[in-house]
Amino acid sequence: MIKSELSPRLDYQSALEAVRRLIDETLLDTDELIQAMMQHLTLGTGKNLRAMLLLGSAMDEEGLVPQDAVIAGAAVEILHLATLVHDDIIDEADIRRGQASLQKKFGKKEAVICGDYLFCIAIAMVAEISNHYPEKLKEFTQAMTKICLGELRQFKHNSDTDLSVLNYLKIIAGKTSALFALAMYSGAIINGSSDKEARFMGRIGHNMGLAFQILDDCADYEADVVVTKKSVKHDLAEEVITLPLIFAFLKKPELKQRIRQQQLSVAEINEIIAEVVDVGGVSMAHDVAEKYYRKTKKMIDTLPNKHQRQLMGKILGRIWKVEN
Amino acid sequence: MIKSELSPRLDYQSALEAVRRLIDETLLDTDELIQAMMQHLTLGTGKNLRAMLLLGSAMDEEGLVPQDAVIAGAAVEILHLATLVHDDIIDEADIRRGQASLQKKFGKKEAVICGDYLFCIAIAMVAEISNHYPEKLKEFTQAMTKICLGELRQFKHNSDTDLSVLNYLKIIAGKTSALFALAMYSGAIINGSSDKEARFMGRIGHNMGLAFQILDDCADYEADVVVTKKSVKHDLAEEVITLPLIFAFLKKPELKQRIRQQQLSVAEINEIIAEVVDVGGVSMAHDVAEKYYRKTKKMIDTLPNKHQRQLMGKILGRIWKVEN
Repeated sequence: MIKSELSPRLDYQSALEAVRRLIDETLLDTDELIQAMMQHLTLGTGKNLRAMLLLGSAMDEEGLVPQDAVIAGAAVEILHLATLVHDDIIDEADIRRGQASLQKKFGKKEAVICGDYLFCIAIAMVAEISNHYPEKLKEFTQAMTKICLGELRQFKHNSDTDLSVLNYLKIIAGKTSALFALAMYSGAIINGSSDKEARFMGRIGHNMGLAFQILDDCADYEADVVVTKKSVKHDLAEEVITLPLIFAFLKKPELKQRIRQQQLSVAEINEIIAEVVDVGGVSMAHDVAEKYYRKTKKMIDTLPNKHQRQLMGKILGRIWKVEN
Repeated sequence: MIKSELSPRLDYQSALEAVRRLIDETLLDTDELIQAMMQHLTLGTGKNLRAMLLLGSAMDEEGLVPQDAVIAGAAVEILHLATLVHDDIIDEADIRRGQASLQKKFGKKEAVICGDYLFCIAIAMVAEISNHYPEKLKEFTQAMTKICLGELRQFKHNSDTDLSVLNYLKIIAGKTSALFALAMYSGAIINGSSDKEARFMGRIGHNMGLAFQILDDCADYEADVVVTKKSVKHDLAEEVITLPLIFAFLKKPELKQRIRQQQLSVAEINEIIAEVVDVGGVSMAHDVAEKYYRKTKKMIDTLPNKHQRQLMGKILGRIWKVEN
């Protein structure tokens, strides 16, 4: 804590820009061996939602953010990037953030190593600041372990038409919420909060992550199959079972048979999507997302720091409006 | 340092047994999702050479080892295991430590996640003790980054018949020596050595790693293609160019043409192996290994702690005799 209290504090917007610069600098300042892959990764820019949550959670009473939060924010985004690179191998995804995925452009084997490399540099950044927060590194590794298990759980339940709502929630709690929670928990610790306060922040992140992921899964059933930015493929084509589909199965169990077919054509996918919407699968999933949205909103409203209340409310609103 | 000085110390043999128990316990005490893979990994036991080096380097004047070294020793072995799991995906290896490789038995995608998971638990173990050694976590992440780059460098030079001796040494410095050096550096830090002393230990590890890897690469040209324990495949079949072959190219450049063929049959591989031995490629590579062996021996002989001198000399002798 000592050093971070002495180091200069930035306003939120400057801190976010500093995070973005640091990500690019870190990715590009690397061995020439891996430069082409790193350069490619800087082309597709994400929303940096996880860094925003971390910075917001690290804001003091005057709305200022310590320098350590910039490093931690970049680390959490690079860790996220590492998981995306390995996810794309597992999902055989061709597109990521509007660009060719790394595994598509450079090959699966290179992508395995590149993801490992990104993990390493994320951990190196954490190591840079971790001695200011002894005993806290554990939270970081626990979140990482959860993310791996979430990914594995999803993979194991691929094309499992009997996936329960509970198991679906377990999957997204791992693959999305764990990192949201880590970002908010870490921000609070960097801001000098007590462990209890930081855990409360972590729970806000957890619930926001659930709302975010459910909305994202709904979006896959609302958008045109071909134009979605994340991938030309649809969850259905990748055999990923998500909440709208689970609810549709409840209403129309005969859908399961059609999903179990080996290769679905684009026409069949579009048909199934229409039916999932028709039987109310998407709107039911939306209701669940709304439940988590409200829960998150309520928690945010209790935050004593008004800068945090405002910013978190804005981020949550953006998730809800943009994705909804 | 504080806690490790208060914690009980073990003799080397008990410490090594404790490391082996801790590895097994850590791999098996896991989510049921990943249990089958972890269980499979405990079947093929390695020599735990890296843990031995770490424990040896952590020995005090009475030959006793602090508890932290047991945790760090298990972490370094699990980190090594993580790299093997991902290596086997990249090399498409079917056999590892006498068992089916994880990617062969459970699939490539599962192996990607499992390797990530092993990385995470290794880092979690490091996190457990890292607050006793603030500022030192950086060495760990730097070594991990080197290992990734070594792996990538090897992959990029696959089937590169113009690979230079220098680039070969760079590859093995990354993929093998970095972890040997990390193990010995960390052991010394845990033993309370100065950074200068610890770096000297790291350099012993570096040189020993080079000797070890060159001997291992020679062994691939000395053993029967089918019976080698590491894999039914040979470096040649995996397009990995190693020192004996590089020296053989110098003596007989026309060998390059034959290597460049797409698929070598077992008969062709055996023919090439025989020629590599014939033209002196293996014996020249041995000479280089011996150079590093002697350099390592000389450095070990200067260690002031007689327990360390004896143990390190024994480990080095074992590498030299077993692999030679």
